[in-house]
Amino acid sequence: MADMTETMGPSTLREERSKTQFDVEAMKLVWAGSAAHKKVADKMKVLVANDPVFEKSSRPRLDRKSLYKNSLRKAAHAWKLIQDNHLTEEEASSLRHYIDEPSYNDLHWGMFIPAIKGQATEEQQKKWLPQAYKMSIIGCYAQTELGHGSNVQGLETQAVFDPSTDEFVLNSPTLTSTKWWPGGLGKASTHCVTYARLITDGKDYGIHAFIAPIRSLDDHSPLPGITVGDIGVKFGNGGYNTMDNGFLRFDHVRIPRDNMLMKLASVTREGKYVKSGQPKQIGYGAMVYVRTTIVVDASNMLSRAVTIATRYSAVRRQFGTEKGKPETQVIEYATQQSRLFPLIASTYAFRFVGEWMNSLYADVLARIEANDFSTLPEVHACTSGLKSITTSITADGIEECRKLCGGHGYACNSGLPELYAAYVPACTYEGDNTILLFQVARFLMKALSQVGSGKKPTGTAAYLGNIQKLATENCKITQGREWLSYDVIIEAFQARAARLAGACALKLSKAPNAEAAFEEFATDLAEAARAHCQLIIVEKFVEKMRSQIPGRGVAEILEVLCYVYALDLVRINAADFLSTGYLTSKQISLAKDQLRSCFKKIRPNAVALVDAFDHTDHYLSSILGRYDGDVYPNLYKDAQEEPLNDSVVTEGYAAYIRPVLKNQLRQSKL
Amino acid sequence: MADMTETMGPSTLREERSKTQFDVEAMKLVWAGSAAHKKVADKMKVLVANDPVFEKSSRPRLDRKSLYKNSLRKAAHAWKLIQDNHLTEEEASSLRHYIDEPSYNDLHWGMFIPAIKGQATEEQQKKWLPQAYKMSIIGCYAQTELGHGSNVQGLETQAVFDPSTDEFVLNSPTLTSTKWWPGGLGKASTHCVTYARLITDGKDYGIHAFIAPIRSLDDHSPLPGITVGDIGVKFGNGGYNTMDNGFLRFDHVRIPRDNMLMKLASVTREGKYVKSGQPKQIGYGAMVYVRTTIVVDASNMLSRAVTIATRYSAVRRQFGTEKGKPETQVIEYATQQSRLFPLIASTYAFRFVGEWMNSLYADVLARIEANDFSTLPEVHACTSGLKSITTSITADGIEECRKLCGGHGYACNSGLPELYAAYVPACTYEGDNTILLFQVARFLMKALSQVGSGKKPTGTAAYLGNIQKLATENCKITQGREWLSYDVIIEAFQARAARLAGACALKLSKAPNAEAAFEEFATDLAEAARAHCQLIIVEKFVEKMRSQIPGRGVAEILEVLCYVYALDLVRINAADFLSTGYLTSKQISLAKDQLRSCFKKIRPNAVALVDAFDHTDHYLSSILGRYDGDVYPNLYKDAQEEPLNDSVVTEGYAAYIRPVLKNQLRQSKL
Repeated sequence: MADMTETMGPSTLREERSKTQFDVEAMKLVWAGSAAHKKVADKMKVLVANDPVFEKSSRPRLDRKSLYKNSLRKAAHAWKLIQDNHLTEEEASSLRHYIDEPSYNDLHWGMFIPAIKGQATEEQQKKWLPQAYKMSIIGCYAQTELGHGSNVQGLETQAVFDPSTDEFVLNSPTLTSTKWWPGGLGKASTHCVTYARLITDGKDYGIHAFIAPIRSLDDHSPLPGITVGDIGVKFGNGGYNTMDNGFLRFDHVRIPRDNMLMKLASVTREGKYVKSGQPKQIGYGAMVYVRTTIVVDASNMLSRAVTIATRYSAVRRQFGTEKGKPETQVIEYATQQSRLFPLIASTYAFRFVGEWMNSLYADVLARIEANDFSTLPEVHACTSGLKSITTSITADGIEECRKLCGGHGYACNSGLPELYAAYVPACTYEGDNTILLFQVARFLMKALSQVGSGKKPTGTAAYLGNIQKLATENCKITQGREWLSYDVIIEAFQARAARLAGACALKLSKAPNAEAAFEEFATDLAEAARAHCQLIIVEKFVEKMRSQIPGRGVAEILEVLCYVYALDLVRINAADFLSTGYLTSKQISLAKDQLRSCFKKIRPNAVALVDAFDHTDHYLSSILGRYDGDVYPNLYKDAQEEPLNDSVVTEGYAAYIRPVLKNQLRQSKL
Repeated sequence: MADMTETMGPSTLREERSKTQFDVEAMKLVWAGSAAHKKVADKMKVLVANDPVFEKSSRPRLDRKSLYKNSLRKAAHAWKLIQDNHLTEEEASSLRHYIDEPSYNDLHWGMFIPAIKGQATEEQQKKWLPQAYKMSIIGCYAQTELGHGSNVQGLETQAVFDPSTDEFVLNSPTLTSTKWWPGGLGKASTHCVTYARLITDGKDYGIHAFIAPIRSLDDHSPLPGITVGDIGVKFGNGGYNTMDNGFLRFDHVRIPRDNMLMKLASVTREGKYVKSGQPKQIGYGAMVYVRTTIVVDASNMLSRAVTIATRYSAVRRQFGTEKGKPETQVIEYATQQSRLFPLIASTYAFRFVGEWMNSLYADVLARIEANDFSTLPEVHACTSGLKSITTSITADGIEECRKLCGGHGYACNSGLPELYAAYVPACTYEGDNTILLFQVARFLMKALSQVGSGKKPTGTAAYLGNIQKLATENCKITQGREWLSYDVIIEAFQARAARLAGACALKLSKAPNAEAAFEEFATDLAEAARAHCQLIIVEKFVEKMRSQIPGRGVAEILEVLCYVYALDLVRINAADFLSTGYLTSKQISLAKDQLRSCFKKIRPNAVALVDAFDHTDHYLSSILGRYDGDVYPNLYKDAQEEPLNDSVVTEGYAAYIRPVLKNQLRQSKL
């Protein structure tokens, strides 16, 4: 079968790359954020890609036990590499990122240690952190319960102080109080930070954090009074099934009083509840940090999906205009472009807003240090909203990329099903996306009411101070090309956001019961919140564009992406712009025309724009997204690995197929 | 743990059901379509639910081989039941439906046999059908190739006639010509209907269908020259992985000339290609039938998802207004209602349009019989569009329902991940949904141009004959309550569809190159097509409402659903209505107010509306969607079945966890 190697993929991608109009290496640096980051990433991604232990393409074929055991192996191997190579904290974190497999490490490093850092006293930190840093304990974060998710105040687990022994007694009083979902809890962790109602002297002081040992450090068996296990299979092949999301019940488990994390409040030896006097806002830094990570991660995950979809859209051919010629690359089709290119633009947009959040984080830390909490409501709202928006768009975008790959996207070896299944929980954890939008909306309503009483909103909400003008002056453009102006774009997004928020505020002000009205107009409020967040992302993209961006053609193509991002949002949200009266349908139509022109500029650069993410084939784990474009021979090769092909005649033939064909079912034992 | 049995689910659902304002039994009949259908369905669903062989909740835990073998067992057992109980064709088909597991049966009964019926001569049918009906052969449908999906004309497989032996020689000349994806092909089928370029006397006559034996009827081994196997794991746990989607290569495989399906064209003994003179439109009946099935199936699958999400939204509680009281049922929240209730409405809407398609099918058959092909273009467009719209909304709707269940929706035991993964291919097979919309758009453009030259459009396109009025007279309503009128609704949808189509036609008419312009304005054309299809669904819902609907309160609540369906589309597509000038933003705002009022009417009936689908717990296979609402104890119970919980200390502990905790990695072999 000499022709088995002949496919057009590789030459097609080579040709695509030859058409590139910008310096891809310079763009790689823009994407990485800095030369230092890039250096770490480059080193770690290659380390992972070249190590056979980190092979991951077989994950969808493994049963749960093998999958989990293999993930434990990877975690151990990673820790060995980190120690042997004396990796820095940044390198270690990058290494884990490129291993790309959910494991107890995510919770140990990402939740357990930060919780101790944020909520333990210095003395407590000295006790726990060294053990955690050298992994002589493995910790997780046990907050949610079987019957209680987002509403932390509804948790039922109890920690009752017993002054006679100076201990807390942890107890799960009901079935619904069973801790449920925490990652790393099911099979791996020796300890957890758990949340429980603190009760002392008969009084319930609400939810507090405690460190609970759950497994023996000798033989890993659950400690007395602890019932713990894995909650079962989750969405998708591979995906999050490498993680042991667990359940946990406490049956009057005693822990020392000092296992309460006491930075904000403590219980004395006598059982008296005492607030530490520390401002509770000190927890905000951690929250901003986690959300920044989530937004940066969104750009990463979306970048993987668009890389796969873009490369395969270039390789794949379907229908054609001229007889005898090869079929047309699907990336040539307007519908494919109109679905794919805005996702490439969103990937860059999320990257830049994540970069900005990093600086916001530094600013928040400095202010908290200086006891300046004035910006925190605005920061809380903007990070809530950005987490919500970017994770939702990323999850939907991954699935859209899968569909853009046609039928082959449905096979696990496209990499997209697993990417989606592993990513989509980001819409739920660290704040459900719908609930987060309401927090943004509440902030907007409050900010507007303060504008009414003369207080100037700041930061991402500053534009609301200008609401009078924004609400009255409509867009003036009459020519399509006028859309290609950052000022025009930003003003449009500001006007839309301000008008939607203003309309909500008006409705609420007329309502007799504010809380009921908030519920009544929930959909409108969510829309206003979304508009606010999209404005932030657009603004940060523009800010990036107004900075110095080196490299031949780099700024030019990013400018096109910036317009694609904004104009596509105008298209999608045309109803907002029209109903608020800011744009006419003619102006919307002009925006669509410009969008189409931008697509034409993206087209020759599309493959290079995803090459700039610089993903290894290992990291993508996608035959459709291979760098070399050699898709079809490798799909064929991969099919030969399917376990069902181990035998030519299928295992169930004698028992279940032959009796059907030979009409011998009556005699068969099924 | 006495309290382990205490949860509020069951009493909550009992109370929900007590609030119902309509006759649920009468609604079940409306949903089933007829008493006769209902009788068959009731019998079959209970037969399946009570038979332990058809257990399916463990599917997500099985590895591929076990999953596949188990599905062969179910297929054999089903065939045994069909024979033993002398089930009618309708009963057998219903039985397979309730077994709810993709298998070779779907292709054998749904594609192989219909292809023979549609494309074979009567003599050929006499040869093949009896074998197929008694399953002494198992057939599949091998059309798509590794490099060729939707574009049938691009297929590369060859069937070269050899007059010296009176045979066709089937050959796969390239790697990309490998047949790829056909269900039932990988491991089960003995035969396939395959598509190949017919070449005789050196001339290529294009794509034709042939019956090819592929496996020995003696021992099931692949026949000489045949390379066949399974293509590998697909999206999701369980899901479509019970199906052996396969690959197939022909290496100069000889089949008798008579294995060409010769109803439309044949090759003579001498190798002469002859058209039969049969109109090629005779294939349309089968196409309408398949699409009708798909639309009805969409309503079924969406009904499962909304049943789960509705019941669990009633059971699940989160946050609360009063201290000490149980938390609020999430179904009380406006955002939950605004996402869930339109999906309940869509479920009914798709059911009724599917019902109407059944009558359309009968009409098409009668007309084809009478050589009247005049309605076929319109029928082709409308069934293309309805397939596209209903499958897209259903796939997205299932995933939305999963998100509406919060974190627990992500666990496989919610039933939703598998439902989504198994359903989503419907967006791709039998015509990619995007491509189908363009077929609708092409029809609309042609119909409009014919209106210009005086020809009256008919059927679902009849309104285009009225485009002058529709394009100029805007909506006149000034009060919210005026929206609750079928005439107002239909006129709005007609005006929107006509105006969008008209605007596209105008743009195309101005373009120098029609084909390039069609590509250029693809997004607008797709939008016009979507508007046309939504109009059809709204119209058919209204038609249903104007028929006699018996049962206390049944017509009343269906009326509310009809308005929810339509007004939610007005909300979602507000940009269309605004930009075409048909509605003002005030009128849109009034529509949203009415929508909210409708939600209030749905609320007390929500659980009963999904009970009316009458799904067994077996069919739903969802702990969150249990009829009795006893969710939490069963989630806890199900977790105990997870294979990882077989051992208290996890299998990888000694090898991979202990060395980490004890700092002994250097000595370990990983």
